[in-house]
Amino acid sequence: MQQTTTSTGTTTTTTASAYEEHERDLDLRWWAAANYLTAAQIYLQDNPLLREPLSVEDIKPRLLGHWGTSPGLSMIYTLLNRLIRDTGADCVYVAGPGHGGPALLANAYLEGTYGEAYPAVSADVAGLTRLVRQFSTPGGVPSHVGVQTPGSIHEGGELGYSLAHAAGAAFDHPDLIVACVVGDGEAETGPLAGSWKIPAFLNARRDGAVLPILHLNGYKIAGPTVLGRADDTDVLGLLTAQGWDPVVVAGDDPAAVFTDLHHALTAAHDRIRDNQRRARTGSAEPFRPVRWPAIVLRTPKGWTGPKVVDGVVVEGTFRAHQVPLTLVREDVGHFRLLERWLRSYAPETLFDATGRLVPELRALAPAGDKRMSASPYANGGRLLHRLDIPALAPYAVSVPTPGVVHHGNTRPFGELLRDVYRANTRESDGGGTFRLFCPDETASNRLGAVFEATDRCLQAPILTTDDHVSPEGRVMEVLSEHLCQGWLEGYLLSGRHGVFATYEAFAMVSASMLIQHAKWLQHAADLPWRRSIASLNVLLTSTCWRNDNNGFSHQGPGLIDIAIPLAPAVVRVWFPPDANTTLSVAEHCLRSRDHVNLIVADKQEHLQYLDLEEAAAHCAAGASTWDWAGTETADGEPDIVLAAAGDVPTLEVLAAARLLRDHVPYLRVRVVNVVDLMGLLPPADHPHGFGERKFERLFTAATDVVFAFHGYPRAVHQLLHGRPEPGRFHVRGYTEQGTTTTPFDMVVLNRMSRYHLALEALRRSARVPEGGATLAEHCHAMLTRHHGYIREHFEDMPEIRGWTWAG
Amino acid sequence: MQQTTTSTGTTTTTTASAYEEHERDLDLRWWAAANYLTAAQIYLQDNPLLREPLSVEDIKPRLLGHWGTSPGLSMIYTLLNRLIRDTGADCVYVAGPGHGGPALLANAYLEGTYGEAYPAVSADVAGLTRLVRQFSTPGGVPSHVGVQTPGSIHEGGELGYSLAHAAGAAFDHPDLIVACVVGDGEAETGPLAGSWKIPAFLNARRDGAVLPILHLNGYKIAGPTVLGRADDTDVLGLLTAQGWDPVVVAGDDPAAVFTDLHHALTAAHDRIRDNQRRARTGSAEPFRPVRWPAIVLRTPKGWTGPKVVDGVVVEGTFRAHQVPLTLVREDVGHFRLLERWLRSYAPETLFDATGRLVPELRALAPAGDKRMSASPYANGGRLLHRLDIPALAPYAVSVPTPGVVHHGNTRPFGELLRDVYRANTRESDGGGTFRLFCPDETASNRLGAVFEATDRCLQAPILTTDDHVSPEGRVMEVLSEHLCQGWLEGYLLSGRHGVFATYEAFAMVSASMLIQHAKWLQHAADLPWRRSIASLNVLLTSTCWRNDNNGFSHQGPGLIDIAIPLAPAVVRVWFPPDANTTLSVAEHCLRSRDHVNLIVADKQEHLQYLDLEEAAAHCAAGASTWDWAGTETADGEPDIVLAAAGDVPTLEVLAAARLLRDHVPYLRVRVVNVVDLMGLLPPADHPHGFGERKFERLFTAATDVVFAFHGYPRAVHQLLHGRPEPGRFHVRGYTEQGTTTTPFDMVVLNRMSRYHLALEALRRSARVPEGGATLAEHCHAMLTRHHGYIREHFEDMPEIRGWTWAG
Repeated sequence: MQQTTTSTGTTTTTTASAYEEHERDLDLRWWAAANYLTAAQIYLQDNPLLREPLSVEDIKPRLLGHWGTSPGLSMIYTLLNRLIRDTGADCVYVAGPGHGGPALLANAYLEGTYGEAYPAVSADVAGLTRLVRQFSTPGGVPSHVGVQTPGSIHEGGELGYSLAHAAGAAFDHPDLIVACVVGDGEAETGPLAGSWKIPAFLNARRDGAVLPILHLNGYKIAGPTVLGRADDTDVLGLLTAQGWDPVVVAGDDPAAVFTDLHHALTAAHDRIRDNQRRARTGSAEPFRPVRWPAIVLRTPKGWTGPKVVDGVVVEGTFRAHQVPLTLVREDVGHFRLLERWLRSYAPETLFDATGRLVPELRALAPAGDKRMSASPYANGGRLLHRLDIPALAPYAVSVPTPGVVHHGNTRPFGELLRDVYRANTRESDGGGTFRLFCPDETASNRLGAVFEATDRCLQAPILTTDDHVSPEGRVMEVLSEHLCQGWLEGYLLSGRHGVFATYEAFAMVSASMLIQHAKWLQHAADLPWRRSIASLNVLLTSTCWRNDNNGFSHQGPGLIDIAIPLAPAVVRVWFPPDANTTLSVAEHCLRSRDHVNLIVADKQEHLQYLDLEEAAAHCAAGASTWDWAGTETADGEPDIVLAAAGDVPTLEVLAAARLLRDHVPYLRVRVVNVVDLMGLLPPADHPHGFGERKFERLFTAATDVVFAFHGYPRAVHQLLHGRPEPGRFHVRGYTEQGTTTTPFDMVVLNRMSRYHLALEALRRSARVPEGGATLAEHCHAMLTRHHGYIREHFEDMPEIRGWTWAG
Repeated sequence: MQQTTTSTGTTTTTTASAYEEHERDLDLRWWAAANYLTAAQIYLQDNPLLREPLSVEDIKPRLLGHWGTSPGLSMIYTLLNRLIRDTGADCVYVAGPGHGGPALLANAYLEGTYGEAYPAVSADVAGLTRLVRQFSTPGGVPSHVGVQTPGSIHEGGELGYSLAHAAGAAFDHPDLIVACVVGDGEAETGPLAGSWKIPAFLNARRDGAVLPILHLNGYKIAGPTVLGRADDTDVLGLLTAQGWDPVVVAGDDPAAVFTDLHHALTAAHDRIRDNQRRARTGSAEPFRPVRWPAIVLRTPKGWTGPKVVDGVVVEGTFRAHQVPLTLVREDVGHFRLLERWLRSYAPETLFDATGRLVPELRALAPAGDKRMSASPYANGGRLLHRLDIPALAPYAVSVPTPGVVHHGNTRPFGELLRDVYRANTRESDGGGTFRLFCPDETASNRLGAVFEATDRCLQAPILTTDDHVSPEGRVMEVLSEHLCQGWLEGYLLSGRHGVFATYEAFAMVSASMLIQHAKWLQHAADLPWRRSIASLNVLLTSTCWRNDNNGFSHQGPGLIDIAIPLAPAVVRVWFPPDANTTLSVAEHCLRSRDHVNLIVADKQEHLQYLDLEEAAAHCAAGASTWDWAGTETADGEPDIVLAAAGDVPTLEVLAAARLLRDHVPYLRVRVVNVVDLMGLLPPADHPHGFGERKFERLFTAATDVVFAFHGYPRAVHQLLHGRPEPGRFHVRGYTEQGTTTTPFDMVVLNRMSRYHLALEALRRSARVPEGGATLAEHCHAMLTRHHGYIREHFEDMPEIRGWTWAG
């Protein structure tokens, strides 16, 4: 029994057994094995246990890998293993410094999990040879912790998201502890700095715990770090201010640091269980704040590696960041230093004659799924339950005839999500498998029906002026797209379901995270041992066309352009034109696996076109001809095709079709509506790509198509390359013209109004029928009138100076 | 004289005069005028001073605007004005809650600056009518603080960047104080949370000061905020831990809060000047940490607005966020509340008979350029000096013949930047007008020559193991793309020059900021009173093709796709193929104004093709035929065009051309190199778009073009829409195939290798000359051999399972 006092004066009684010297010595030997294999992966392609004298031929032709962070990562891994064996805890390890790949690979290998996932990397000399040789080698394994690494839910290449992923994995996994190593380099990023607020959202009763280990080794690639150079008072203050109760563990004597870190981890574990026990016994009310343990770990960068090379200090400096000895093939001094360094771990005492880890060290690994590298929480598909999705009929908007009823397009989706919450929350124990993540816009985005089922989540005192806020709430609102996206990713990767709903323009804030997640899913598909997980579903709403109240900064459909070039097996972009198609697409996306789905649907009231059955058929087809909207005759080709993708474009296309029908009834107009944007890609380039015949049934082989698109027009042109005569497609869309104005002025400014479309249809049509001139006049007159309305009062305003209706 | 003690116990002696009651009463009246005009802008379209009884016709048909944050913003503005008049300080006001647009407009109007920029908005009833009417009205002015607002360097629509912009504006403006209001909503974002580390980078000797005012009003759109609900200890702790010395000012009694905030601002000013005086007298060495003042301000949301509406509390809650009374046209109760609220400010006592602010209040505005809305620091073009750029010749790589010399493409650029630093730093006073911003990769990106001129900047104790780090350094390395980009934006907007150099993939982290900056520049061009500023220059290096050491997470050229649809007047994307073209492009970009320039140039050693003179001509042309690389004859059209944009694509295209020359010498091959990507757009769509004849001179009118592109292939296809027969362009590029591998494997994985290009050229060529079959065999053999090399050892690795050389 021992007592630890943290920086805020909390005293925790530790019940775990003391850390015996022989235990520590075993741990130090495991650590030596991990460090040895780390260095060996960076340097060796043969002779992996140095059974022969090191030769130049044993050394890889190209030296790649990050040594600096690795010993610290392995030390933490070693001691978490002991904690798991002592306590039976389920732990996941998030390596923020994901470039420390060889360290995590080494530990997964030593635990045996790596060989289970990749049988060629066996627990013998052949397997060891394979392990070291494949690292950072063409056709081998990447240098970073990532999807290929058993036990990982995190690719740490793009720094900033470790804590967000950790928190996401902890939500609704009440018994899980997510140990999250944050490097002091990553700690400088905005997203990581914004992630420390976990205690304001983590519910001790129903969620697991996040144990941050802020690993300060002082340097990033080339320079010092802000926190690495800050004093303990400031570092502890930073964490304390955000709901943590941190302790410092520091030093460069391995035995002492192991002892201190072991005690810190044990105390943290006890504190976590203490917090949870108190929250889980008795009433959850009234709210009292919970402080969570955290560890600040200061150890040398490149610890146990070469201390001084060519008279320059390496250990403890930025020079240890990647490969500390670079000239080992050319410089005999470096070569000898390398051999001395590798042999300093005494590999002959760590592995037996066959190359297998010696039994007393093998015994240090937890059993089976308790191994962090084998945790089902880090291979979320193993925990995934089918989301219970109610039948859609009760949410459907009644559409007796197309284009008459107005309704909010996201509102029924919100009602569906309300009942998804209800159906997937076990009331008995407060468990849940679904959450909505949103930057404080759930109500604004007209998804407020979810508040009939649950509240906004906040671990803080609730005021009478609050609206649907409680510690037990499961709607995750935080004004950070990075946190919304990162939490959801962690939640999905650990086997849950969710939706991220956001203003379209600000989805761009976390665009890089979406890209990295798509990369993860792309490579996960190649790994048979990785199980399918629920798709990342992003609702892009409050779109560019209807952010007329907030103006230009809120008008940006660029995430669509980001998504298009990503892995075709992963990415889908949906443009439901009305409420029932939104429901149908949403259901499809919620059921889907391993995709990134962008659903673009505005929150405002819009005309409704399809009943639920028609909507389902339309969405399943991906695109359809809307016969009721066109003036085609059964025989022959249309004179012009009007196509739309998106709710506002659909409205304008239908209005243009109506203008044409009214003025030039003999013009054969076809109206096509596209929901599944990727259908436009040739089938060789995307699994959803419409087949040639389907494409021609929709768009003909040669007729001109006037296409109104929700996003940037050239996004459609890039998709159409490879289709017959792509030059006949005339796409209009958002052309980066925006301000605070009316919805109609937005379509005029961007020249996608019904009048612009009708004029273009006349210009492009195969025939110019009688009445065309009158219609053109009418369109010009309407645009002039609109222009005049704006000019009347604000003639000298810059917004209209450059504006003309022509085009 | 009075003394203030801050949270860390520092005592500052205040020398400013005491705050007399009559001064406070005047300030409260200015505040009333600002609040009145704020509410009036949201509600009124006529009768702006309520000289007539309010009528429904006076009220706008659509009510837009954000009331909640506005009274706080105006209070701060009012008291900063007093500080400026008391001290003569130059201040800039950054409104993080940029949606509080009407408040800033009101203050700029009251100061007279608004009418100077927009003469129609005069200081009389007609001008007032215009002011209220134009707000959030079609053809009028946007609802947010932004480029149209005099005195603004910040559009607060996308939250997160206020402090970064503020710091950027403070760098190298030693006398400036940037007051930065941070809302508690914005404070939840990652980028803002990562921005508090300013004290680690702000040099008291040469830089101005940032004065953060964290404005906690408890709610964002719909829910509570984390910091709004945190107690003072935690909020102060958060700032203290990051180098600030914050005080709390709180309350809801205007007179008391004005008094307290006045004292806090005065004390902060004195503390700032004290810090600067100490740093600027005597030696700058040895380093001692400087703590900067900060203010935490807690006031009610929607202060002075309706307290209770329909029995529901509004003031102090999220319900005051936007329009606190929404049914004023429909509900007579709301209507009466509105009139009572508006009249509560007694507009008849604030404006004279002509509608002009009464003289005693006009006297509260600072004079001329001291007005924050007129500050030249917030209209940086007024301070902009031409950057002194040395002649390029000394940095040029000697290229006696194309394609023989190897050289790093960014290295000479680094040498140029070194001398740009030297030429634009006034050694006498330590002033400078140029900085490089980079996430800890300056050396990695081979720009390390700059360290011959200056150091990395860090305000912390320097260790002997540091490399070119000092408090006086002017290379801004912080592991945050958000900070690099945000600092540079602030630096440019306040009249300086700079470059942001970053790994290509991670430029995506701050993509949304680049978009917002492009929007700013786009609208700035319409404002005659806004002066041109230096362009935002982004060097994208460590590119997808040569991040083979870091793998898939580091491979992503998506920022190019982001840039393409932005305003054509603003955005340019450059692909210099070698070192001398990189120099030439860099010089052009450094001289340019009001653009966003992306320069894509890898840092590794590459073949060199053009001497400096040829490079300049090639870059000026935007694209050229490289006759020396082709096998065209003078007469007739080529059989095939090989085109490249980017350094690695250029290499592969040249190698393919060589293969063709060697094997099928009679095939007429043209080789075209594209530097200026936007040249591919039709001239109607971009000012750089190549004219029709130029385009045909390069690419012919009908010959097939095999195009190797640095980024995603369809990005080129979207640009080519509108060009003759775009279907004949066959683009290869990065197709999201990546891992840790060799550079050559990267081009094979993405099917852009010389062999793939040669095969495609044979397939697409107008003629199939003798030797074609042999060449095809050779290409297949080489690809098979490469495939075999990888398969040899790693046959069962997932990375190669799906890989074939065909295509």
